Amino acid sequence: MLVPAMSDLVITSPANQRLKGLVTLRRRRVRESSGTTLLEGLEETALALDAGVVPRALFHCPELMLDPTAGAALVERARRTGAEVVELGRTAFEKVAYREGPDGILARVPSPGLALADVDLPDDALVLLCEGVEKPGNLGAMLRTADAAGVALVISADPVTDWGNPNVIRSSKGTVFSVPVASASTDEAWTWLTERGVAVVATTPDTDVDHTDADLTGPVAVAVGSEKYGLSDAALARARYRVRIPMVGQANSLNVATSAAIVVYEAVRQRRAA
Amino acid sequence: MLVPAMSDLVITSPANQRLKGLVTLRRRRVRESSGTTLLEGLEETALALDAGVVPRALFHCPELMLDPTAGAALVERARRTGAEVVELGRTAFEKVAYREGPDGILARVPSPGLALADVDLPDDALVLLCEGVEKPGNLGAMLRTADAAGVALVISADPVTDWGNPNVIRSSKGTVFSVPVASASTDEAWTWLTERGVAVVATTPDTDVDHTDADLTGPVAVAVGSEKYGLSDAALARARYRVRIPMVGQANSLNVATSAAIVVYEAVRQRRAA
Repeated sequence: MLVPAMSDLVITSPANQRLKGLVTLRRRRVRESSGTTLLEGLEETALALDAGVVPRALFHCPELMLDPTAGAALVERARRTGAEVVELGRTAFEKVAYREGPDGILARVPSPGLALADVDLPDDALVLLCEGVEKPGNLGAMLRTADAAGVALVISADPVTDWGNPNVIRSSKGTVFSVPVASASTDEAWTWLTERGVAVVATTPDTDVDHTDADLTGPVAVAVGSEKYGLSDAALARARYRVRIPMVGQANSLNVATSAAIVVYEAVRQRRAA
Repeated sequence: MLVPAMSDLVITSPANQRLKGLVTLRRRRVRESSGTTLLEGLEETALALDAGVVPRALFHCPELMLDPTAGAALVERARRTGAEVVELGRTAFEKVAYREGPDGILARVPSPGLALADVDLPDDALVLLCEGVEKPGNLGAMLRTADAAGVALVISADPVTDWGNPNVIRSSKGTVFSVPVASASTDEAWTWLTERGVAVVATTPDTDVDHTDADLTGPVAVAVGSEKYGLSDAALARARYRVRIPMVGQANSLNVATSAAIVVYEAVRQRRAA
């Protein structure tokens, strides 16, 4: 049954100026100057609302909803946060959506990301530090891991890709809004972590210490580098420990998100056993 | 410096019938009826040759090679296996290539995959069983993990996606040729593993046993299910153990390739510690 939701505005023309403005949020420069990004999907938006995100605007298209009752409930939930609610016609919605097979829910939200100065780390925090990671899918996968493992903070150091990138949001399944994330230069990140007594553990093939032989129970930041080059020399030089994941195979490396998951979950194992 | 390689044949017209035949290998039905698939990329082809793959034909485009000397050496290496060598003009090569930014090396090779009857498992084998996994990128990521971790066999049970899928090959970085892989029905796979004394360990949220609390040192098959539904009820009912990866977060699951990596590397840890 289609339950109509009241809207502040209805847009049916795909040529509408406001829609054109939304499409420009695909560009990083526009996301950064506006401080907002696009979040798509019912489940992802529900997770962001759970995490306290207040959308600037919620766009919905009843015709595209697989579950109109759940869709209408989400629209009302967003409205109660103060978000403007805009109904879009199907053609209009599809112009703005970046997914194939959109589910009729789209929100303009503040871009995720905290300033390091505003982050309050718990004792024995487990942090994930990603230096120069490029592919949105890898950042998204690491956020899902961070969410599942209870990582206190994910820092993108010398970021190539911003946290507000719609493909990061999508591949994170919305966890970019539930896991605390920050961006900083490698230097700022290192200084901030060191001042808080967090030991940086660099993941690199260039060591003889297996990740399972390092003590990962205290305040620790697991550091992984870019897909092509791994961690920078500057990062490796400043790490407290270097650990490697033992590999016996023919190919030369694990995927960066896989490596992060293996080391993060080894830290979880050690903490639960401690 | 461009080092020309001698070719059995040169094709410059993208309308060539033979090229049209290669393009049809993007369809699973054509891969299965021909028993061959397309392998693209210099590194991936080198890894496949290392693993003993004999290409039916090697297609090269000197103009597209970033490193023409390495490219020419690979072409000669393929020729020595008995492969036909065909030089393609740039337009012709780009018609067949499925990557963006092709590197001028493409091979038609026997599709990867063994019959279970032909597989000889080592003692205490570590096996990865993927039931109904759909996304080529996830299968590829699991193959990279299997390669790194020394997994003896990866079985695709009730496969939705064939091992010869070009996106599996690409995302596996060629490890689909270096890691033994097989396809079977869930029933066949279970019977085969049970007959060989391999305990199937099902990964599922539906248990109280953490993956780190199960004994993964003997002959073990780590089983993961499809992206949407996880393992089938039939698979769960027949598993020796069920294990879960502890999760504390907001989202409901880890990516299937991430889950596989975490449990496989826990098995590696236990085996190295034993």
